[in-house]
Amino acid sequence: MCEANVFVIDTEPSEANPGELFLEAVDEIVPEGENLWRLTSIFGEQKTIIGRIHSMHLVDHRILFQRAAT
Amino acid sequence: MCEANVFVIDTEPSEANPGELFLEAVDEIVPEGENLWRLTSIFGEQKTIIGRIHSMHLVDHRILFQRAAT
Repeated sequence: MCEANVFVIDTEPSEANPGELFLEAVDEIVPEGENLWRLTSIFGEQKTIIGRIHSMHLVDHRILFQRAAT
Repeated sequence: MCEANVFVIDTEPSEANPGELFLEAVDEIVPEGENLWRLTSIFGEQKTIIGRIHSMHLVDHRILFQRAAT
């Protein structure tokens, strides 16, 4: 299966701080508004995140979001 | 491998018009500015697209962008 793990970070990622796991095994990602994204895992778990996509590496199953500054 | 095919559409997608293939076997997606995205396939092919992410269905290997209105 080709789901991805979604990580989140508050600042620019670095080797020492690559981001923390936000939701595993994500199948679906849909924007729901300005900087608001709904994630759904293959198990049906849903979470929303406020931020922007920093990078996606699909072969590595890795998607990184950067949280919006508040 | 868990790359995805990227499709693009100008309007809201429908069953009759689900979008046209823009780049196959995409590994990496990185935003490069406001509504500008750089896509890199597993073969090293790069293309940029101006628009927003409409939806991602990773298990189906399908990512849909909606082109920005000009």
